Amino acid sequence: MKVLNEQSPSRSLVNVEAGENVRIFNFVNAYGCSIGDNTKVGSFVEIQKGAKIGRNCKISSHSFICEGVIIEDGVFVGHNVTFINDRYPRAVNADGSQQTEVDWTVSPTLVRRGASIGSSATILCGVTVGEGALVGAGSVVTRDVPPGAVVAGNPANILKKSSPR
Amino acid sequence: MKVLNEQSPSRSLVNVEAGENVRIFNFVNAYGCSIGDNTKVGSFVEIQKGAKIGRNCKISSHSFICEGVIIEDGVFVGHNVTFINDRYPRAVNADGSQQTEVDWTVSPTLVRRGASIGSSATILCGVTVGEGALVGAGSVVTRDVPPGAVVAGNPANILKKSSPR
Amino acid sequence: MKVLNEQSPSRSLVNVEAGENVRIFNFVNAYGCSIGDNTKVGSFVEIQKGAKIGRNCKISSHSFICEGVIIEDGVFVGHNVTFINDRYPRAVNADGSQQTEVDWTVSPTLVRRGASIGSSATILCGVTVGEGALVGAGSVVTRDVPPGAVVAGNPANILKKSSPR
Repeated sequence: MKVLNEQSPSRSLVNVEAGENVRIFNFVNAYGCSIGDNTKVGSFVEIQKGAKIGRNCKISSHSFICEGVIIEDGVFVGHNVTFINDRYPRAVNADGSQQTEVDWTVSPTLVRRGASIGSSATILCGVTVGEGALVGAGSVVTRDVPPGAVVAGNPANILKKSSPR
Repeated sequence: MKVLNEQSPSRSLVNVEAGENVRIFNFVNAYGCSIGDNTKVGSFVEIQKGAKIGRNCKISSHSFICEGVIIEDGVFVGHNVTFINDRYPRAVNADGSQQTEVDWTVSPTLVRRGASIGSSATILCGVTVGEGALVGAGSVVTRDVPPGAVVAGNPANILKKSSPR
Repeated sequence: MKVLNEQSPSRSLVNVEAGENVRIFNFVNAYGCSIGDNTKVGSFVEIQKGAKIGRNCKISSHSFICEGVIIEDGVFVGHNVTFINDRYPRAVNADGSQQTEVDWTVSPTLVRRGASIGSSATILCGVTVGEGALVGAGSVVTRDVPPGAVVAGNPANILKKSSPR
Protein backbone atom coordinates (compact mmCIF):
# COMPACT_ATOMS: atom_id res chain seq x y z
CA MET A 1 0.00 0.00 0.00
CA LYS A 2 1.13 3.54 -0.70
CA VAL A 3 -0.59 6.74 0.40
CA LEU A 4 -1.76 9.10 -2.32
CA ASN A 5 -2.05 12.85 -1.88
CA GLU A 6 -2.79 15.00 -4.89
CA GLN A 7 -4.42 18.39 -5.32
CA SER A 8 -4.69 18.94 -9.06
CA PRO A 9 -7.34 20.00 -11.55
CA SER A 10 -7.98 16.30 -12.15
CA ARG A 11 -8.14 14.89 -8.68
CA SER A 12 -8.42 15.77 -5.04
CA LEU A 13 -6.85 12.89 -3.12
CA VAL A 14 -6.09 13.19 0.58
CA ASN A 15 -4.56 10.26 2.44
CA VAL A 16 -5.83 7.61 0.06
CA GLU A 17 -4.25 4.21 0.73
CA ALA A 18 -3.87 2.53 -2.65
CA GLY A 19 -2.62 -0.92 -3.63
CA GLU A 20 -0.72 -1.87 -6.77
CA ASN A 21 -2.04 -0.78 -10.15
CA VAL A 22 -4.96 1.27 -8.83
CA ARG A 23 -6.35 3.56 -11.54
CA ILE A 24 -8.16 6.75 -10.57
CA PHE A 25 -9.70 8.78 -13.40
CA ASN A 26 -10.18 12.55 -13.52
CA PHE A 27 -12.61 14.66 -11.47
CA VAL A 28 -12.39 12.39 -8.43
CA ASN A 29 -12.66 13.42 -4.77
CA ALA A 30 -11.36 10.85 -2.29
CA TYR A 31 -10.02 11.14 1.25
CA GLY A 32 -9.01 8.85 4.08
CA CYS A 33 -10.16 5.70 2.30
CA SER A 34 -8.39 2.54 1.11
CA ILE A 35 -8.48 1.01 -2.38
CA GLY A 36 -7.12 -2.46 -3.18
CA ASP A 37 -4.88 -3.70 -6.00
CA ASN A 38 -6.05 -3.28 -9.61
CA THR A 39 -9.25 -1.45 -8.68
CA LYS A 40 -10.47 1.27 -11.06
CA VAL A 41 -12.28 4.42 -9.94
CA GLY A 42 -14.22 6.40 -12.55
CA SER A 43 -14.80 10.12 -13.00
CA PHE A 44 -17.04 12.17 -10.70
CA VAL A 45 -16.68 9.65 -7.88
CA GLU A 46 -16.47 10.64 -4.22
CA ILE A 47 -15.08 8.23 -1.63
CA GLN A 48 -15.21 9.30 2.00
CA LYS A 49 -12.92 8.64 4.92
CA GLY A 50 -13.07 5.17 6.40
CA ALA A 51 -14.53 3.54 3.28
CA LYS A 52 -12.68 0.37 2.29
CA ILE A 53 -12.65 -0.99 -1.26
CA GLY A 54 -11.12 -4.35 -2.09
CA ARG A 55 -9.00 -5.66 -4.95
CA ASN A 56 -10.09 -6.08 -8.58
CA CYS A 57 -13.16 -3.88 -8.15
CA LYS A 58 -14.66 -1.46 -10.62
CA ILE A 59 -16.18 1.73 -9.17
CA SER A 60 -17.94 3.42 -12.08
CA SER A 61 -18.44 7.13 -12.73
CA HIS A 62 -20.73 9.34 -10.64
CA SER A 63 -20.87 6.93 -7.69
CA PHE A 64 -20.67 7.91 -4.04
CA ILE A 65 -19.06 5.64 -1.44
CA CYS A 66 -19.53 6.95 2.06
CA GLU A 67 -17.95 6.38 5.42
CA GLY A 68 -19.03 3.05 6.84
CA VAL A 69 -19.03 1.16 3.53
CA ILE A 70 -16.87 -1.92 3.08
CA ILE A 71 -16.61 -3.37 -0.42
CA GLU A 72 -14.86 -6.73 -0.72
CA ASP A 73 -12.80 -8.04 -3.68
CA GLY A 74 -14.10 -8.32 -7.24
CA VAL A 75 -17.16 -6.12 -6.77
CA PHE A 76 -18.72 -4.16 -9.62
CA VAL A 77 -20.26 -0.82 -8.61
CA GLY A 78 -22.15 0.68 -11.56
CA HIS A 79 -22.49 4.33 -12.51
CA ASN A 80 -24.35 6.74 -10.25
CA VAL A 81 -24.61 4.30 -7.34
CA THR A 82 -25.22 5.92 -3.95
CA PHE A 83 -24.48 4.46 -0.54
CA ILE A 84 -25.94 5.82 2.69
CA ASN A 85 -24.76 5.76 6.30
CA ASP A 86 -27.51 7.54 8.23
CA ARG A 87 -31.14 6.42 8.09
CA TYR A 88 -32.58 9.64 9.54
CA PRO A 89 -30.28 12.44 8.35
CA ARG A 90 -30.80 15.98 9.59
CA ALA A 91 -28.93 19.21 8.93
CA VAL A 92 -29.80 20.62 12.36
CA ASN A 93 -30.59 19.34 15.83
CA ALA A 94 -34.00 19.72 17.47
CA ASP A 95 -32.78 23.01 19.00
CA GLY A 96 -31.91 24.37 15.54
CA SER A 97 -28.12 24.12 16.00
CA GLN A 98 -26.13 22.64 13.11
CA GLN A 99 -25.30 18.96 13.42
CA THR A 100 -21.68 17.93 13.57
CA GLU A 101 -19.99 14.52 13.53
CA VAL A 102 -20.75 14.01 17.22
CA ASP A 103 -24.50 14.18 16.53
CA TRP A 104 -24.73 11.02 14.50
CA THR A 105 -23.38 7.50 14.28
CA VAL A 106 -22.45 5.72 11.08
CA SER A 107 -24.52 2.67 10.12
CA PRO A 108 -22.23 0.27 8.24
CA THR A 109 -22.86 -1.38 4.87
CA LEU A 110 -21.08 -4.45 3.53
CA VAL A 111 -20.83 -5.61 -0.09
CA ARG A 112 -19.49 -9.14 -0.27
CA ARG A 113 -16.99 -10.58 -2.73
CA GLY A 114 -17.98 -10.70 -6.40
CA ALA A 115 -21.31 -8.88 -6.03
CA SER A 116 -22.51 -6.44 -8.72
CA ILE A 117 -24.50 -3.30 -8.03
CA GLY A 118 -26.32 -1.97 -11.07
CA SER A 119 -26.15 1.66 -12.16
CA SER A 120 -28.28 4.24 -10.31
CA ALA A 121 -28.94 1.85 -7.44
CA THR A 122 -29.30 3.28 -3.93
CA ILE A 123 -28.11 1.13 -1.02
CA LEU A 124 -29.55 2.01 2.36
CA CYS A 125 -27.37 1.68 5.43
CA GLY A 126 -27.16 -1.30 7.73
CA VAL A 127 -27.43 -3.65 4.76
CA THR A 128 -25.30 -6.57 3.55
CA VAL A 129 -25.21 -7.41 -0.17
CA GLY A 130 -24.30 -11.10 -0.33
CA GLU A 131 -21.46 -12.75 -2.24
CA GLY A 132 -22.05 -12.79 -5.99
CA ALA A 133 -25.44 -11.08 -5.69
CA LEU A 134 -26.70 -8.82 -8.46
CA VAL A 135 -28.60 -5.61 -7.67
CA GLY A 136 -30.62 -4.41 -10.65
CA ALA A 137 -30.14 -0.94 -12.12
CA GLY A 138 -32.23 1.74 -10.43
CA SER A 139 -33.02 -0.41 -7.38
CA VAL A 140 -33.42 0.93 -3.87
CA VAL A 141 -32.01 -1.72 -1.54
CA THR A 142 -33.58 -1.49 1.92
CA ARG A 143 -32.62 -4.86 3.41
CA ASP A 144 -30.03 -7.63 3.10
CA VAL A 145 -29.55 -9.29 -0.29
CA PRO A 146 -28.88 -13.05 -0.02
CA PRO A 147 -25.70 -14.44 -1.59
CA GLY A 148 -26.11 -15.01 -5.32
CA ALA A 149 -29.60 -13.50 -5.51
CA VAL A 150 -30.84 -11.08 -8.15
CA VAL A 151 -32.89 -8.19 -6.74
CA ALA A 152 -34.57 -5.21 -8.37
CA GLY A 153 -37.20 -2.52 -7.79
CA ASN A 154 -38.00 0.19 -5.26
CA PRO A 155 -37.88 -1.28 -2.68
CA ALA A 156 -35.75 -4.08 -4.13
CA ASN A 157 -37.25 -7.56 -4.07
CA ILE A 158 -35.77 -10.90 -5.04
CA LEU A 159 -36.27 -11.74 -8.73
CA LYS A 160 -34.15 -14.88 -8.77
CA LYS A 161 -32.43 -16.82 -6.03
CA SER A 162 -29.34 -17.41 -8.13
CA SER A 163 -27.79 -14.91 -10.48
CA PRO A 164 -26.34 -15.53 -13.95
CA ARG A 165 -22.63 -15.24 -14.61
CA MET B 1 -23.95 38.68 2.05
CA LYS B 2 -20.95 38.82 -0.24
CA VAL B 3 -20.83 37.90 -3.91
CA LEU B 4 -18.49 35.09 -4.92
CA ASN B 5 -16.88 34.82 -8.34
CA GLU B 6 -14.23 32.18 -8.91
CA GLN B 7 -13.01 30.37 -11.99
CA SER B 8 -10.53 27.79 -10.77
CA PRO B 9 -9.86 24.09 -11.23
CA SER B 10 -11.87 23.53 -8.05
CA ARG B 11 -14.90 25.67 -8.57
CA SER B 12 -16.85 27.64 -11.11
CA LEU B 13 -18.76 30.29 -9.17
CA VAL B 14 -20.49 33.16 -10.95
CA ASN B 15 -22.40 35.77 -8.96
CA VAL B 16 -23.06 33.51 -5.99
CA GLU B 17 -24.46 35.45 -3.01
CA ALA B 18 -23.05 33.79 0.10
CA GLY B 19 -23.62 34.47 3.80
CA GLU B 20 -21.11 34.06 6.60
CA ASN B 21 -19.14 30.85 6.92
CA VAL B 22 -20.48 29.22 3.75
CA ARG B 23 -18.30 26.24 2.72
CA ILE B 24 -18.17 25.17 -0.91
CA PHE B 25 -16.15 22.05 -1.70
CA ASN B 26 -14.29 21.28 -4.92
CA PHE B 27 -15.77 20.46 -8.35
CA VAL B 28 -18.79 22.74 -7.83
CA ASN B 29 -20.66 24.71 -10.50
CA ALA B 30 -22.90 27.48 -9.16
CA TYR B 31 -24.21 30.69 -10.68
CA GLY B 32 -26.68 33.42 -9.83
CA CYS B 33 -27.92 31.68 -6.68
CA SER B 34 -27.92 32.59 -3.00
CA ILE B 35 -26.62 30.48 -0.10
CA GLY B 36 -27.26 31.34 3.57
CA ASP B 37 -24.92 31.45 6.57
CA ASN B 38 -23.08 28.25 7.59
CA THR B 39 -24.44 26.19 4.72
CA LYS B 40 -22.15 23.51 3.23
CA VAL B 41 -22.14 22.55 -0.45
CA GLY B 42 -20.50 19.23 -1.42
CA SER B 43 -18.51 18.19 -4.48
CA PHE B 44 -20.07 17.69 -7.92
CA VAL B 45 -23.02 19.95 -7.05
CA GLU B 46 -24.65 22.32 -9.54
CA ILE B 47 -26.81 25.21 -8.36
CA GLN B 48 -28.56 27.27 -11.01
CA LYS B 49 -29.48 30.93 -11.17
CA GLY B 50 -32.39 32.01 -9.03
CA ALA B 51 -32.14 29.06 -6.62
CA LYS B 52 -32.23 30.16 -2.97
CA ILE B 53 -30.73 28.09 -0.16
CA GLY B 54 -31.20 29.06 3.47
CA ARG B 55 -28.94 29.04 6.52
CA ASN B 56 -27.51 25.98 8.27
CA CYS B 57 -28.28 23.67 5.36
CA LYS B 58 -26.26 20.76 4.08
CA ILE B 59 -26.26 20.21 0.33
CA SER B 60 -24.50 16.88 -0.23
CA SER B 61 -22.35 15.77 -3.16
CA HIS B 62 -23.72 15.09 -6.65
CA SER B 63 -26.96 17.03 -6.08
CA PHE B 64 -28.59 19.38 -8.57
CA ILE B 65 -30.57 22.42 -7.42
CA CYS B 66 -32.29 24.12 -10.31
CA GLU B 67 -33.82 27.50 -10.97
CA GLY B 68 -37.14 27.80 -9.20
CA VAL B 69 -36.11 25.92 -6.05
CA ILE B 70 -36.31 27.58 -2.65
CA ILE B 71 -34.77 25.73 0.29
CA GLU B 72 -35.43 27.19 3.74
CA ASP B 73 -33.16 27.07 6.81
CA GLY B 74 -31.81 23.87 8.36
CA VAL B 75 -32.60 21.59 5.43
CA PHE B 76 -30.62 18.44 4.68
CA VAL B 77 -30.27 17.59 0.99
CA GLY B 78 -28.67 14.16 0.59
CA HIS B 79 -26.27 12.99 -2.10
CA ASN B 80 -27.39 12.74 -5.71
CA VAL B 81 -30.70 14.55 -5.12
CA THR B 82 -32.27 16.05 -8.26
CA PHE B 83 -34.78 18.87 -8.44
CA ILE B 84 -36.88 19.62 -11.52
CA ASN B 85 -38.51 22.79 -12.82
CA ASP B 86 -40.27 21.69 -16.01
CA ARG B 87 -42.82 18.88 -16.06
CA TYR B 88 -42.76 18.39 -19.85
CA PRO B 89 -39.22 19.20 -20.96
CA ARG B 90 -38.34 19.27 -24.65
CA ALA B 91 -35.12 20.05 -26.49
CA VAL B 92 -36.97 21.38 -29.53
CA ASN B 93 -40.29 23.02 -30.35
CA ALA B 94 -43.00 21.34 -32.43
CA ASP B 95 -41.47 22.99 -35.53
CA GLY B 96 -38.09 21.41 -34.77
CA SER B 97 -36.41 24.66 -33.69
CA GLN B 98 -34.30 24.54 -30.53
CA GLN B 99 -36.05 25.68 -27.36
CA THR B 100 -34.69 28.71 -25.53
CA GLU B 101 -35.61 30.27 -22.18
CA VAL B 102 -38.62 32.00 -23.74
CA ASP B 103 -40.17 28.64 -24.63
CA TRP B 104 -40.76 27.46 -21.10
CA THR B 105 -41.80 28.67 -17.67
CA VAL B 106 -40.24 27.55 -14.42
CA SER B 107 -42.46 25.59 -12.00
CA PRO B 108 -41.32 26.41 -8.46
CA THR B 109 -40.46 23.97 -5.66
CA LEU B 110 -40.32 24.78 -1.96
CA VAL B 111 -38.54 22.83 0.78
CA ARG B 112 -39.62 24.06 4.20
CA ARG B 113 -37.47 24.60 7.28
CA GLY B 114 -35.81 21.56 8.83
CA ALA B 115 -36.88 19.05 6.18
CA SER B 116 -34.54 16.23 5.08
CA ILE B 117 -34.35 14.84 1.56
CA GLY B 118 -32.73 11.43 1.37
CA SER B 119 -29.98 10.58 -1.09
CA SER B 120 -30.91 9.83 -4.72
CA ALA B 121 -34.40 11.33 -4.29
CA THR B 122 -36.00 13.11 -7.23
CA ILE B 123 -38.33 16.01 -6.47
CA LEU B 124 -40.76 16.90 -9.23
CA CYS B 125 -41.64 20.54 -9.78
CA GLY B 126 -44.61 22.38 -8.33
CA VAL B 127 -44.18 20.52 -5.04
CA THR B 128 -43.83 21.69 -1.42
CA VAL B 129 -41.92 19.51 1.06
CA GLY B 130 -43.33 20.45 4.47
CA GLU B 131 -41.46 21.61 7.57
CA GLY B 132 -39.46 18.83 9.20
CA ALA B 133 -40.61 16.22 6.67
CA LEU B 134 -38.35 13.32 5.73
CA VAL B 135 -38.14 12.07 2.14
CA GLY B 136 -36.72 8.55 1.95
CA ALA B 137 -33.65 7.72 -0.10
CA GLY B 138 -34.40 6.91 -3.73
CA SER B 139 -37.93 8.36 -3.60
CA VAL B 140 -39.61 10.13 -6.50
CA VAL B 141 -41.75 12.89 -4.98
CA THR B 142 -44.65 13.79 -7.26
CA ARG B 143 -46.90 15.76 -4.88
CA ASP B 144 -46.78 17.80 -1.68
CA VAL B 145 -45.28 16.22 1.43
CA PRO B 146 -47.14 17.22 4.64
CA PRO B 147 -45.15 18.85 7.45
CA GLY B 148 -43.35 16.26 9.57
CA ALA B 149 -44.35 13.29 7.40
CA VAL B 150 -42.06 10.47 6.27
CA VAL B 151 -42.52 9.52 2.61
CA ALA B 152 -40.79 6.95 0.41
CA GLY B 153 -41.16 5.04 -2.85
CA ASN B 154 -41.70 5.75 -6.55
CA PRO B 155 -44.05 7.58 -6.50
CA ALA B 156 -43.50 8.58 -2.88
CA ASN B 157 -46.27 7.72 -0.44
CA ILE B 158 -46.66 8.57 3.23
CA LEU B 159 -45.09 5.95 5.53
CA LYS B 160 -45.61 7.84 8.79
CA LYS B 161 -47.42 11.04 9.58
CA SER B 162 -44.71 12.19 11.95
CA SER B 163 -41.01 11.74 11.42
CA PRO B 164 -38.37 10.77 13.99
CA ARG B 165 -35.74 13.22 15.13
CA MET C 1 -17.38 18.04 -37.99
CA LYS C 2 -14.21 18.94 -36.17
CA VAL C 3 -12.35 16.83 -33.64
CA LEU C 4 -11.94 18.26 -30.14
CA ASN C 5 -9.06 17.41 -27.85
CA GLU C 6 -8.67 19.34 -24.62
CA GLN C 7 -7.05 18.54 -21.29
CA SER C 8 -7.84 21.45 -19.01
CA PRO C 9 -9.20 21.98 -15.51
CA SER C 10 -12.63 22.44 -17.13
CA ARG C 11 -12.80 19.57 -19.55
CA SER C 12 -11.23 16.32 -20.55
CA LEU C 13 -12.05 15.82 -24.22
CA VAL C 14 -10.33 13.11 -26.27
CA ASN C 15 -11.22 12.65 -29.92
CA VAL C 16 -14.69 14.16 -29.64
CA GLU C 17 -16.26 14.76 -33.06
CA ALA C 18 -18.34 17.92 -32.76
CA GLY C 19 -20.60 19.71 -35.22
CA GLU C 20 -21.19 23.45 -35.49
CA ASN C 21 -22.04 25.44 -32.40
CA VAL C 22 -21.68 22.58 -29.93
CA ARG C 23 -21.46 23.88 -26.35
CA ILE C 24 -19.71 21.82 -23.69
CA PHE C 25 -19.80 23.17 -20.14
CA ASN C 26 -17.17 22.69 -17.43
CA PHE C 27 -16.29 19.47 -15.57
CA VAL C 28 -17.05 17.25 -18.56
CA ASN C 29 -15.34 13.98 -19.48
CA ALA C 30 -15.91 12.83 -23.07
CA TYR C 31 -13.93 10.59 -25.39
CA GLY C 32 -14.34 8.96 -28.77
CA CYS C 33 -17.95 10.09 -29.19
CA SER C 34 -19.76 12.32 -31.69
CA ILE C 35 -22.01 15.30 -30.93
CA GLY C 36 -24.18 17.00 -33.55
CA ASP C 37 -24.70 20.69 -34.40
CA ASN C 38 -26.06 23.00 -31.69
CA THR C 39 -26.15 20.34 -29.00
CA LYS C 40 -25.42 21.42 -25.42
CA VAL C 41 -23.64 19.23 -22.87
CA GLY C 42 -23.93 20.19 -19.19
CA SER C 43 -21.48 19.93 -16.30
CA PHE C 44 -20.48 16.61 -14.71
CA VAL C 45 -21.42 14.67 -17.84
CA GLU C 46 -19.47 11.66 -19.10
CA ILE C 47 -19.83 10.46 -22.68
CA GLN C 48 -18.02 7.26 -23.66
CA LYS C 49 -16.44 6.14 -26.87
CA GLY C 50 -18.79 5.11 -29.62
CA ALA C 51 -21.78 7.05 -28.26
CA LYS C 52 -23.50 9.16 -30.90
CA ILE C 53 -25.57 12.24 -30.09
CA GLY C 54 -27.57 14.07 -32.76
CA ARG C 55 -28.23 17.70 -33.53
CA ASN C 56 -30.20 20.17 -31.39
CA CYS C 57 -30.07 17.95 -28.32
CA LYS C 58 -29.75 18.98 -24.71
CA ILE C 59 -27.69 16.70 -22.47
CA SER C 60 -28.19 18.00 -18.94
CA SER C 61 -25.78 17.97 -16.01
CA HIS C 62 -24.71 14.79 -14.19
CA SER C 63 -25.82 12.44 -17.01
CA PHE C 64 -23.89 9.43 -18.24
CA ILE C 65 -24.02 8.33 -21.89
CA CYS C 66 -22.26 5.05 -22.43
CA GLU C 67 -20.85 3.17 -25.37
CA GLY C 68 -23.64 1.65 -27.43
CA VAL C 69 -26.07 4.58 -27.04
CA ILE C 70 -27.40 6.40 -30.09
CA ILE C 71 -29.39 9.58 -29.50
CA GLU C 72 -31.12 11.08 -32.53
CA ASP C 73 -31.83 14.78 -33.24
CA GLY C 74 -33.80 17.04 -30.91
CA VAL C 75 -33.66 14.80 -27.86
CA PHE C 76 -33.82 16.15 -24.32
CA VAL C 77 -31.79 14.20 -21.76
CA GLY C 78 -32.51 15.50 -18.26
CA HIS C 79 -30.13 15.79 -15.32
CA ASN C 80 -28.65 12.70 -13.73
CA VAL C 81 -29.86 10.33 -16.46
CA THR C 82 -27.96 7.03 -16.67
CA PHE C 83 -27.70 4.71 -19.66
CA ILE C 84 -26.52 1.11 -19.43
CA ASN C 85 -24.88 -1.25 -21.91
CA ASP C 86 -24.47 -4.50 -20.00
CA ARG C 87 -27.39 -6.29 -18.36
CA TYR C 88 -25.27 -8.54 -16.14
CA PRO C 89 -22.16 -6.53 -15.29
CA ARG C 90 -19.33 -8.15 -13.36
CA ALA C 91 -15.95 -6.84 -12.21
CA VAL C 92 -14.35 -10.28 -12.41
CA ASN C 93 -14.78 -13.51 -14.35
CA ALA C 94 -15.91 -16.77 -12.76
CA ASP C 95 -12.22 -17.64 -12.23
CA GLY C 96 -11.68 -14.41 -10.29
CA SER C 97 -9.64 -12.70 -13.02
CA GLN C 98 -10.51 -9.08 -13.81
CA GLN C 99 -12.84 -8.58 -16.76
CA THR C 100 -11.57 -6.64 -19.74
CA GLU C 101 -13.30 -5.39 -22.90
CA VAL C 102 -13.08 -8.85 -24.47
CA ASP C 103 -15.21 -10.33 -21.70
CA TRP C 104 -18.40 -8.49 -22.55
CA THR C 105 -20.45 -7.28 -25.48
CA VAL C 106 -22.24 -3.96 -25.64
CA SER C 107 -26.06 -4.03 -25.80
CA PRO C 108 -27.18 -1.02 -27.82
CA THR C 109 -29.80 1.58 -26.86
CA LEU C 110 -31.59 3.93 -29.24
CA VAL C 111 -33.38 7.18 -28.41
CA ARG C 112 -35.45 8.36 -31.36
CA ARG C 113 -35.88 11.89 -32.64
CA GLY C 114 -37.57 14.43 -30.36
CA ALA C 115 -37.91 12.16 -27.33
CA SER C 116 -37.46 13.52 -23.79
CA ILE C 117 -35.92 11.61 -20.92
CA GLY C 118 -36.76 13.04 -17.52
CA SER C 119 -34.16 13.72 -14.86
CA SER C 120 -32.80 10.80 -12.80
CA ALA C 121 -34.21 8.24 -15.23
CA THR C 122 -32.28 5.00 -15.78
CA ILE C 123 -32.45 3.41 -19.23
CA LEU C 124 -31.61 -0.28 -19.38
CA CYS C 125 -29.75 -1.60 -22.39
CA GLY C 126 -31.29 -3.16 -25.46
CA VAL C 127 -34.15 -0.63 -25.35
CA THR C 128 -35.58 1.79 -27.93
CA VAL C 129 -37.26 5.00 -26.76
CA GLY C 130 -39.67 5.95 -29.54
CA GLU C 131 -39.91 9.23 -31.44
CA GLY C 132 -41.35 12.03 -29.32
CA ALA C 133 -41.84 9.79 -26.28
CA LEU C 134 -41.58 11.21 -22.78
CA VAL C 135 -39.89 9.25 -19.98
CA GLY C 136 -40.93 10.54 -16.55
CA ALA C 137 -38.39 11.71 -13.99
CA GLY C 138 -36.97 8.95 -11.83
CA SER C 139 -38.22 6.16 -14.10
CA VAL C 140 -36.38 2.90 -14.69
CA VAL C 141 -37.00 1.94 -18.32
CA THR C 142 -36.70 -1.81 -18.83
CA ARG C 143 -38.36 -2.25 -22.24
CA ASP C 144 -39.18 -0.34 -25.41
CA VAL C 145 -41.17 2.88 -25.14
CA PRO C 146 -43.65 3.34 -28.03
CA PRO C 147 -43.40 6.51 -30.14
CA GLY C 148 -45.15 9.44 -28.47
CA ALA C 149 -45.97 7.57 -25.27
CA VAL C 150 -45.53 8.88 -21.73
CA VAL C 151 -44.03 6.35 -19.33
CA ALA C 152 -43.11 6.54 -15.65
CA GLY C 153 -42.32 4.39 -12.62
CA ASN C 154 -39.92 1.62 -11.63
CA PRO C 155 -40.24 -0.35 -13.83
CA ALA C 156 -41.65 2.25 -16.22
CA ASN C 157 -45.20 1.67 -17.47
CA ILE C 158 -47.25 3.58 -20.02
CA LEU C 159 -49.24 6.46 -18.48
CA LYS C 160 -50.54 7.91 -21.74
CA LYS C 161 -50.29 6.72 -25.31
CA SER C 162 -49.63 10.22 -26.62
CA SER C 163 -47.49 12.81 -24.92
CA PRO C 164 -48.17 16.55 -24.56
CA ARG C 165 -46.08 19.08 -26.40
